[in-house]
Amino acid sequence: VSEPDHEFPPLRSVRDRPHRVTLTHGLLHPDNTRLRECVRHRTALVVTSPTVDRLYGRRIRAYFGPIPGVHYSVLHRGEATKSIDAAVEISERASAAGLCRTSPVIAFGGGVCTDICGLAAALHHRGIPHIKVPTTLIGLVDAGIGMKNAVNHDGRKSVLGSFHPPEHSLLDPGFLGTLPRRHLSSGLAEIIKLAVVADGDLFDLVEASARAMLDSGFRAPAEVVTAVVRRSVAGMLAELARNPYEVTDFRRKVDFGHTFSPWLETASQHTVLHGEAVALDIALSTELAADLGLITAAERERVLDLLRCSGLPLSWPATSVDGLWASLRSVVDHRNGDLHLVVPTAIGDCTFVEARAISPGLLRACLDRLGRHDSTARPDRLSGVRA
Amino acid sequence: VSEPDHEFPPLRSVRDRPHRVTLTHGLLHPDNTRLRECVRHRTALVVTSPTVDRLYGRRIRAYFGPIPGVHYSVLHRGEATKSIDAAVEISERASAAGLCRTSPVIAFGGGVCTDICGLAAALHHRGIPHIKVPTTLIGLVDAGIGMKNAVNHDGRKSVLGSFHPPEHSLLDPGFLGTLPRRHLSSGLAEIIKLAVVADGDLFDLVEASARAMLDSGFRAPAEVVTAVVRRSVAGMLAELARNPYEVTDFRRKVDFGHTFSPWLETASQHTVLHGEAVALDIALSTELAADLGLITAAERERVLDLLRCSGLPLSWPATSVDGLWASLRSVVDHRNGDLHLVVPTAIGDCTFVEARAISPGLLRACLDRLGRHDSTARPDRLSGVRA
Repeated sequence: VSEPDHEFPPLRSVRDRPHRVTLTHGLLHPDNTRLRECVRHRTALVVTSPTVDRLYGRRIRAYFGPIPGVHYSVLHRGEATKSIDAAVEISERASAAGLCRTSPVIAFGGGVCTDICGLAAALHHRGIPHIKVPTTLIGLVDAGIGMKNAVNHDGRKSVLGSFHPPEHSLLDPGFLGTLPRRHLSSGLAEIIKLAVVADGDLFDLVEASARAMLDSGFRAPAEVVTAVVRRSVAGMLAELARNPYEVTDFRRKVDFGHTFSPWLETASQHTVLHGEAVALDIALSTELAADLGLITAAERERVLDLLRCSGLPLSWPATSVDGLWASLRSVVDHRNGDLHLVVPTAIGDCTFVEARAISPGLLRACLDRLGRHDSTARPDRLSGVRA
Repeated sequence: VSEPDHEFPPLRSVRDRPHRVTLTHGLLHPDNTRLRECVRHRTALVVTSPTVDRLYGRRIRAYFGPIPGVHYSVLHRGEATKSIDAAVEISERASAAGLCRTSPVIAFGGGVCTDICGLAAALHHRGIPHIKVPTTLIGLVDAGIGMKNAVNHDGRKSVLGSFHPPEHSLLDPGFLGTLPRRHLSSGLAEIIKLAVVADGDLFDLVEASARAMLDSGFRAPAEVVTAVVRRSVAGMLAELARNPYEVTDFRRKVDFGHTFSPWLETASQHTVLHGEAVALDIALSTELAADLGLITAAERERVLDLLRCSGLPLSWPATSVDGLWASLRSVVDHRNGDLHLVVPTAIGDCTFVEARAISPGLLRACLDRLGRHDSTARPDRLSGVRA
């Protein structure tokens, strides 16, 4: 160790990638120029889920009709097959379509489609642009507006992925008209998640109109639907902006409902939808908060009632305490060494609980109470009662 | 299209990731604390190539000996198997070793090892830290100091990857003592690349001492080896800092030697080493420059002589003009729509030539001249003659 060390000037790699988010209506109407403006004469690959292709494929092609260089591809993947192979498959199709490094992939679909396309865009030639057009409620308020793109691997949820912000998210609640009620409920779980931990007014709004929105396929009351979507998106963006790359803090409010849910989704082989698993997790986390004396019984009731009124489950019969416990341990790795379990302290506020406060016995007691609660559900306590 | 659109404030995701680069000596000496300081009591996964494990595995384990939480893994991959699966394999091992989101992967090896580990770190939990300890000359001056990490797919070089800066690159020329001469020559190609397009003084230095450095396994003349490495690294970092994410410009000086080389590597099934392919590309690009009247015959001779004196080939018998032509077309996609072929205009300066200036006939003529040049090589014209 004779020669002295030499320190080169550190290489600073600042990357500033603005991500535009626009709420629009009639996105596929020929007069709506938003999406064509996004493409700007570039070669592009439009990727749709099979359902979106069946319901909207013709209109999408008609919308881009006169534009050369727009290619189309249908992605046959679900949550159970949302794997790294799927992202590689989209990269192959991007090569075949002749995309170059400034050509966007445009994902029309739910979280599975936008996640896979986002990761494919992150990997293809080390990163090409992508545009998200979410067609589900979860997509509108969550998966379609973030820059996180991940796939599952080896039975673990979202273990492989990237932070790769879309150029643009184009949000059109009109797509919700063709979404099955169960998927609308699933999306409501993400809205309720945000409302419980950060926005009491949003909670009131959803509590007053969840039933009406579900009954109308999110068409009515129109001004409430717009307000709920705007408020949810704005709240989510504000939370993301605090810590976009999750490097400054691993205590994230928006992780509410996302600690036990990965296990529930995986253990159910994805027969439990993402939002349903989030609802089960919200219920369990809220029950834990009540047990730990962090939230009042009345507020716990309001949370559980709103989940139920939104068509969401509070318990899943096959839930295993061992499974939840294992899930909790693997979340600790993801959150950098501790649990940071988000639990509500009031409607619109929350705190973080660490692993040492939780035990398998406590989980069992909470699950038992939720099971009884769920089976004694009173169908008369539905949304609207507080309106 | 009744309701007005709503534009949310754009989500700005600024990411500033400083990447430290340190030239050190005796990295594995127990008294050298650099690498232990990098680990800082974190859980870590040390990944080595089989060769590095054989030559240095015992010393690496001894170096970290008393530190808990350092895990070891040997990666059995070469350029021909540098695939996305390899990155996924490292992610699996990172999970098994209990790495959390601030735990680093430490890659000890050549470009194959640092590329795979860099991509694995980019994907694992959407990005964990990584540290590069290049053990080859190419690694020291090129693959080990950048933030580009890519793998091959479907016969295409580096088509899947990421920009994911290492926390730290630790450069110790001492590893070169165990590198086979052919691999030292291969590394010299990257140094010559940089010298030709950006640093005439570096060219002079290499021209004067290439033979002595090769003969001594890059141990002597010690001050020249250090100067060449420092100058090459500093030059490369300066070029990278201009446009770290390759988004402002697709005309990059450091792409010199990297237009035809992907095809040459792939077509040879990686029997032609990366640096050898770069040398073949440098020779062809220089010959093209001479043909187009962009560089003098004397300077072209100096470039070709230095390649040859460095033990590098000027021609590869199985080269096909059709293959090169196809390679050129696919590079156009990667460089966003045009060729931007880097060609030297003098020792230390360059320009960019576009696709319209190149034809298969021109390539054929240049290859023929290089073949004759190579076969009439005068072994007396070796490095040192200008010293």
